[in-house]
Amino acid sequence: MAKKETQFVQEITSRDVDFAKWYTDIILKTDMCDYTDVKGCMTIKPYGYAIWELMQKEMDQRFKDTGHQNAYFPLLIPESMLMKEAEHVEGFAPEVAWVTHGGNEKLQERLAIRPTSETIIGTMYSKWIQSYRDLPVLMNQWCNVMRWEKSTRPFLRTSEFLWQEGHTAHETHDDAVEETLRMLDVYYDFMVNVLAIPVIRGGKSESERFAGAEATYTCEALMHDGKALQMGTSHFLSDHFARAYDIKYLSREGKQEYCYTTSWGTSTRMIGGLIMVHGDDRGLKLPPKVAPIQVVILPIAMHKEGVLDKANELFEQCKAAGLRVKVDDSEQSAGWKFNQWEMKGVPVRLEVGPRDIENGVVVAVRRDTLEKITLPMEGLAERLVEMMNEIHEGMLNAALEHRLAHTTTAENFGEFMDGVKKGFVRAPWCSDADCEIEIKCITGASTRCKPMEEDTNVEGCKCILCGKPAKTLMYFARAY
Amino acid sequence: MAKKETQFVQEITSRDVDFAKWYTDIILKTDMCDYTDVKGCMTIKPYGYAIWELMQKEMDQRFKDTGHQNAYFPLLIPESMLMKEAEHVEGFAPEVAWVTHGGNEKLQERLAIRPTSETIIGTMYSKWIQSYRDLPVLMNQWCNVMRWEKSTRPFLRTSEFLWQEGHTAHETHDDAVEETLRMLDVYYDFMVNVLAIPVIRGGKSESERFAGAEATYTCEALMHDGKALQMGTSHFLSDHFARAYDIKYLSREGKQEYCYTTSWGTSTRMIGGLIMVHGDDRGLKLPPKVAPIQVVILPIAMHKEGVLDKANELFEQCKAAGLRVKVDDSEQSAGWKFNQWEMKGVPVRLEVGPRDIENGVVVAVRRDTLEKITLPMEGLAERLVEMMNEIHEGMLNAALEHRLAHTTTAENFGEFMDGVKKGFVRAPWCSDADCEIEIKCITGASTRCKPMEEDTNVEGCKCILCGKPAKTLMYFARAY
Repeated sequence: MAKKETQFVQEITSRDVDFAKWYTDIILKTDMCDYTDVKGCMTIKPYGYAIWELMQKEMDQRFKDTGHQNAYFPLLIPESMLMKEAEHVEGFAPEVAWVTHGGNEKLQERLAIRPTSETIIGTMYSKWIQSYRDLPVLMNQWCNVMRWEKSTRPFLRTSEFLWQEGHTAHETHDDAVEETLRMLDVYYDFMVNVLAIPVIRGGKSESERFAGAEATYTCEALMHDGKALQMGTSHFLSDHFARAYDIKYLSREGKQEYCYTTSWGTSTRMIGGLIMVHGDDRGLKLPPKVAPIQVVILPIAMHKEGVLDKANELFEQCKAAGLRVKVDDSEQSAGWKFNQWEMKGVPVRLEVGPRDIENGVVVAVRRDTLEKITLPMEGLAERLVEMMNEIHEGMLNAALEHRLAHTTTAENFGEFMDGVKKGFVRAPWCSDADCEIEIKCITGASTRCKPMEEDTNVEGCKCILCGKPAKTLMYFARAY
Repeated sequence: MAKKETQFVQEITSRDVDFAKWYTDIILKTDMCDYTDVKGCMTIKPYGYAIWELMQKEMDQRFKDTGHQNAYFPLLIPESMLMKEAEHVEGFAPEVAWVTHGGNEKLQERLAIRPTSETIIGTMYSKWIQSYRDLPVLMNQWCNVMRWEKSTRPFLRTSEFLWQEGHTAHETHDDAVEETLRMLDVYYDFMVNVLAIPVIRGGKSESERFAGAEATYTCEALMHDGKALQMGTSHFLSDHFARAYDIKYLSREGKQEYCYTTSWGTSTRMIGGLIMVHGDDRGLKLPPKVAPIQVVILPIAMHKEGVLDKANELFEQCKAAGLRVKVDDSEQSAGWKFNQWEMKGVPVRLEVGPRDIENGVVVAVRRDTLEKITLPMEGLAERLVEMMNEIHEGMLNAALEHRLAHTTTAENFGEFMDGVKKGFVRAPWCSDADCEIEIKCITGASTRCKPMEEDTNVEGCKCILCGKPAKTLMYFARAY
């Protein structure tokens, strides 16, 4: 908005002084979102929403490439329908928003605003699936969901949020497990190769599982402040929901069998992760693949003849090369514009002044390294396309370095306590839920995941807290 | 789903025997949607949702090309916020679904599930807009809305539906009027050039206006059964919502002024229109630009050597040419497949058998005309791309012919009564709301619009019902 352009770029609280305040400053000052008068609900402003649209496009293509189709199921779920799967109810009922009146009439049965859609989708699948020939059913929906949260923070935890939820039904246990892991891999690929976030894949502990699931797998990211964020989860639901919602099929052997189902979801929460993994004291730092503007062109001494024309010419070249590009020809000072676009996290800023034009060059400044590079105008767009990949790689590596530098392997509880202050702690654990609670009470750290890409065999080791025989290596961290 | 492939294609009720049953048969048998256990809410199945996705893509590009940005505003609106604009409240309060409990607690204030978002968006605009430099604000959101309807029908009228709602704020009255008409034109362009539906653009009567608007413009389509469907509306809200929600700006003259705002929306209802304008007794007939499958390839005598290979080769060619294409290599009979894909409304069916391959040709069957055309395999994909445009034009013309053949100009009330049974009636009208109600009571027809592309001057004419001096030419029809 133009208003912004008349004010000076405002200061952002330093990350290391007050991380929470830094986060809030960034999301408000870059116009990503805003608070509303509705408790726990935010407005996603165009700059934030454009990031979500780019995320959606990348994920949606991956879902379709793996054979999934989009559909849409109702927002409201009758109370009796929600109540059929016991564990699920226990997990979600306390945070459901209830519709009790339609127009001027009181409803005969309360309706829940969906906190997630296993129950309504299960009900429909029970109607649609008759035979093994109908399987697998592979659907996804993009929608809003509502969980009545007590304490909220934009993107990270809001009462309403936007997400996608995949729901699939299969003939066999193994097919469903395979799907669960396939979608975990799709998420992993998206997070690493689009968001430039080096997440750790793995299984959740029993108490951190999705309500009603047999197993929950997660992608866990480490934020700059050393806290973890669950970026997406994939659930193997076994036949739990199939039994509760009567999703049966006639098998190849002519018998009625229950399906095995899965569900998997990611949400606008990932935008919070993006900010907290990559951002710095100058503001946002957006990975090129989800940057609404990838290249901003600043004409220097814009009133001089030929400068604006050249800027527009470069704009057209970049656009033709498939880059998302913008010319900032507003009346603000060059210094103001530098700050503004750095704050907005645009991957590359181009400066074009009269002398550059004379020399046939432009100055490119990378947001990730702040490096200034003089580039020939000849072949500029192609060079910038390459640079987008370099920036992606650079950001991914920096985030990985940070994660590794903030990951400790604890051999005793003292090391565990120290490690938790820094980031992830790898430790042998007994897998006992009471021990898990005690660790959380003492340290504030929760189990994040049993990592899939590491050796989790801890034979002969003792649990980091209780000293009983350890059953697995577990990642712990304080988390959002 | 495979289940379908094992049954015989089921019969569809004839359009002329029972249009309502025909409609229901089509949407259920083509797997576009399904009823749910939630009153008035439907599930949009993948085939229906894929059509909506194609519509969204086409519209979204048009919105962005005209300078609009997407954003997202909360689902829930506090009762007190909803109640600020008097006419708006009166129009929407009777059909609002109310959230009264969050988790186990009763809320202090009831929250409405948005029936439309002028109120919450106005509240945010009031916060964001300070000066004329911030204007215009041009936003759109894709979301679900809820209106507690007593009698519902899939796509046409459901309690929950998916839509887009644009909301803009401007400095002047004229800027806002211009935007209102610009978006009406965007809708018109989309409906004619994408949906192949020849809609009539025009202004609504005072009583058919959006609740709170100064003026409402509409695109009206004529269904096969002679009833009209409102396909999309664009509202000039004057400063009504700006005054109610305090959307003010500092003008160029340094004074605090109210903004002028607009809103405009289209919904999944258009899918119902698509079915009822183009469909026939064989099923759906999809305009190529929103057909999830544009070309279906049927290998004939599929077990013979080379047939399936050739079908797959043609598939790759079509795909490379940008067509949405599918090979049906299921085990069903050719006859079953013909019926199935005709019912699903796929614009072109290709038949490829051993003899065709020998002769270097394929047989193409156009869904719109049922014409069989032998085409050389050489250059096939390019020919099919052209054919998509021909089919679009053909469908648009057929729909226009139908509309014109079902439009009467009434010079007396007898002609009016006859015309209403057929379709649109053009008639001089006094513009009086009581007369409008009386016409509706007697004939079932409502005012549809004052057409923008016709001479509406009726000086010297008398109102078709009451005989008082007519003020405008008006389109009337019975409507969905």
